[in-house]
Amino acid sequence: MKTRFVLIQTSHAGNVGGVARAMKVMGFDDLVLVNPRFENVLRREETKQRASGAHDVLESARVVKSLEDALDGMTHLCATAMTPRDFGPPTRYPREHFQALLDPSPATPRPDGVAFLFGSERFGMLNEDVYRCHVALSIPTNPQFGSLNLASAAQVLAYEWRLALGGFEQEAHQDPIQASSAAHSAIPAYSSFEPPLPERALASAQEIAGLMTHWQDSLTQIGFLDPQAPKKLMPRLQQIFNRSDLSKEEVHILRGVAKQMVLQNPIKRID
Amino acid sequence: MKTRFVLIQTSHAGNVGGVARAMKVMGFDDLVLVNPRFENVLRREETKQRASGAHDVLESARVVKSLEDALDGMTHLCATAMTPRDFGPPTRYPREHFQALLDPSPATPRPDGVAFLFGSERFGMLNEDVYRCHVALSIPTNPQFGSLNLASAAQVLAYEWRLALGGFEQEAHQDPIQASSAAHSAIPAYSSFEPPLPERALASAQEIAGLMTHWQDSLTQIGFLDPQAPKKLMPRLQQIFNRSDLSKEEVHILRGVAKQMVLQNPIKRID
Repeated sequence: MKTRFVLIQTSHAGNVGGVARAMKVMGFDDLVLVNPRFENVLRREETKQRASGAHDVLESARVVKSLEDALDGMTHLCATAMTPRDFGPPTRYPREHFQALLDPSPATPRPDGVAFLFGSERFGMLNEDVYRCHVALSIPTNPQFGSLNLASAAQVLAYEWRLALGGFEQEAHQDPIQASSAAHSAIPAYSSFEPPLPERALASAQEIAGLMTHWQDSLTQIGFLDPQAPKKLMPRLQQIFNRSDLSKEEVHILRGVAKQMVLQNPIKRID
Repeated sequence: MKTRFVLIQTSHAGNVGGVARAMKVMGFDDLVLVNPRFENVLRREETKQRASGAHDVLESARVVKSLEDALDGMTHLCATAMTPRDFGPPTRYPREHFQALLDPSPATPRPDGVAFLFGSERFGMLNEDVYRCHVALSIPTNPQFGSLNLASAAQVLAYEWRLALGGFEQEAHQDPIQASSAAHSAIPAYSSFEPPLPERALASAQEIAGLMTHWQDSLTQIGFLDPQAPKKLMPRLQQIFNRSDLSKEEVHILRGVAKQMVLQNPIKRID
């Protein structure tokens, strides 16, 4: 499963370095920066210092202009906003959510790619960015002082996610031959890593974004969505669709509905 | 139970500040420095910056000359050395050890005071300091890159220990009115935890059935569903909706969509 850390509009170079180190120490290496405050942040001295030996993570990191560009191949988006939004995704503790996400029951196919999104140090995440996420992860903190440093938040999530994935021991001991045969037999040690049924091909975050735009256009055209008074309709629909982990084929069906609803009623067309 | 963080011969002021912040965000406040590299480290600018709002932890922190002086009142000492020592205490993962430590069985009385000992950034802990500990806690890390930052290690342990102690009790008791008013105030990023919004009232199976009938009618009317060749369209839509655990309100919205899609495009209605 692919894991990506996405930093949105990060201000402090030290935090970028700290996140790179936090990732690498937990065995992750895919870092994307969306509109960082300093465009050269990956090459700044402070960044390198805080990254310590995680230079390779900085070197392979990408800087992109929009969140959209950061989400290719990702199917499950985790916001790390601490403030729940009305009509936003459910707020969950990391440990509980990761367990549920990796639960091998047929009802919850494992995602192909999981992205952790971190907002800017001062303003956090934009509502519209939170709305497209499947969950808002909330690290339990002191009710009187919840000011968790960005790199520390990344460290805690990287740690929890690594443990949820089975830690390092299991990977170290995993014999590639056993692992591949485990897919076809019932070996308990690896059973949690193999879903019992073939997985549906989950739609990517970008495909979901395309679906939402299509629906928004169609619902506006039929007069259900008033662009002047949108009333959180699109965030709410997005949450419905996010919760159901749409497959590529289902996105196709739902786009078909959006396409057809703007055509005139065929019965009336005969008149 | 008392909890103390003890930093032995710490070199970097930033790390001292980072540890203070990591402690406070998890509700701990007892910090002792043993022979820090800079005697004035608690008042240095870099320390204060990295401590962010945890100035009170710095202000009440003590600087002592020997580890002995740092351990008054402590009954259970946890080393955080990454390298197991021959004849040293057992090496354990934090999560497992904390669970065992807090196991309420009579065989394992709870300690009065627990201290976490962190060695210097460059040399770690002295053997003689490790030997006096009850356990050496090993945070699982990448076998190829185990270089965990000192403040990050403190953050992970503070987080695990807080969860082992039962988390923040206040959360469970916070009432929804407080929660919703908090959601609308300006809370910066990574700010204090806010409990999830009140549970959604899930739609009943009958309400879902009514929704499906409504959609079936509408999709037939707009010509998307051909009753002669339904192609499993309705079962597939039902699966999408089922997986998202629709609330009553969401059913209402989706019925609104079904209602509106059969009306003529309002622009054309003017003709």
